[in-house]
Amino acid sequence: MITPENLTEEQRERLSQQLDFLVEMDKMKNIYRQTLVLHEDRQENDAEHAWHLAMLALVLSEYANEPIDLKTVLETVLIHDIVEIDAGDTYAYDTAGNATKAEREQKAAERLFGILPKEQGAHFRELWDAFEAGSTPEARFAASLDRIQPLTLNYCKGGISWKRRDIKRSQVEGRIQTVYDGSEVLGDYAMELIRRASEEGLLRNE
Amino acid sequence: MITPENLTEEQRERLSQQLDFLVEMDKMKNIYRQTLVLHEDRQENDAEHAWHLAMLALVLSEYANEPIDLKTVLETVLIHDIVEIDAGDTYAYDTAGNATKAEREQKAAERLFGILPKEQGAHFRELWDAFEAGSTPEARFAASLDRIQPLTLNYCKGGISWKRRDIKRSQVEGRIQTVYDGSEVLGDYAMELIRRASEEGLLRNE
Repeated sequence: MITPENLTEEQRERLSQQLDFLVEMDKMKNIYRQTLVLHEDRQENDAEHAWHLAMLALVLSEYANEPIDLKTVLETVLIHDIVEIDAGDTYAYDTAGNATKAEREQKAAERLFGILPKEQGAHFRELWDAFEAGSTPEARFAASLDRIQPLTLNYCKGGISWKRRDIKRSQVEGRIQTVYDGSEVLGDYAMELIRRASEEGLLRNE
Repeated sequence: MITPENLTEEQRERLSQQLDFLVEMDKMKNIYRQTLVLHEDRQENDAEHAWHLAMLALVLSEYANEPIDLKTVLETVLIHDIVEIDAGDTYAYDTAGNATKAEREQKAAERLFGILPKEQGAHFRELWDAFEAGSTPEARFAASLDRIQPLTLNYCKGGISWKRRDIKRSQVEGRIQTVYDGSEVLGDYAMELIRRASEEGLLRNE
């Protein structure tokens, strides 16, 4: 990318890598998830999803089970899906897709974080690895938000994306432990929401 | 919104306000800006824009003129446009729209931040007021990013949105002081990019 001429060669190289990465990030706006946005008839994309998670983090951080550093949670949710630029979005209930997901995403992480200056790429990679492994309080809380956001949208949208894919209540409930791992309160919220969705016929019991 | 039954009445009220706010935020995905996304033929929406700015903040914070708290910058860029849910997006070069913008946005801020529990709403309101006034180092750096993001996309997209609106180089240059106020390096980057855009015929000189 373009850089100002009054910088040193090294500074220009660094800024150029950073700008290249940020331009590459635009592709997040074209990766569509299974979740629908509430007020249009279309799927949500990864950039919108990551922004929405960051808003959840800002507003709901008090419910984390463990003390968390909010900045780290924000960084984590902002970058947690960027590997999908290369690896694509894998639907939670797609068994075949999930079998090859890890390998595709590792490759993607290498290429994408590799665009950045070394120490910046390494920092993001560390956050992403922690998110994937659920190995820090911030990663666990981020994962918790990553589950309740689509759940909430699906409920508010009348369960359309569950119905389209014929998803059962037990499948949705099977993913709630991750919410509890990050937040007991949000886990209880998720369970209550599933119960209501089922009662209201948005999610089938069998 | 739905809340778990094992919480106290007060806790349920608080969580319910927070969830209502987060569901309301979905509307950011339907507010379209003049900037186009790079890899589809459509305008960028506010949620995507805010996410992209947050990524710029993560990667480019070293270029801020003054010491900044990155968490505050992230919070600022994440919420800086939410008033547009009620007030709509006002194009930078729309003189009539900009005359009534402040009043529309004040009203919107009252309603939207008012959905949240009082102290959370007040915190966001403070960040947004600072952003509008450019009264903190974090606000100035956020404003700087808010200018270079569309500039960069417009350039990468071949200047289409400048051409469509018949925007002149001097109009774009007239908005660059804000970039310099937050970051000398990014100001120089913006000026270099405008010079190139003009040379390449993406932006007309007169």
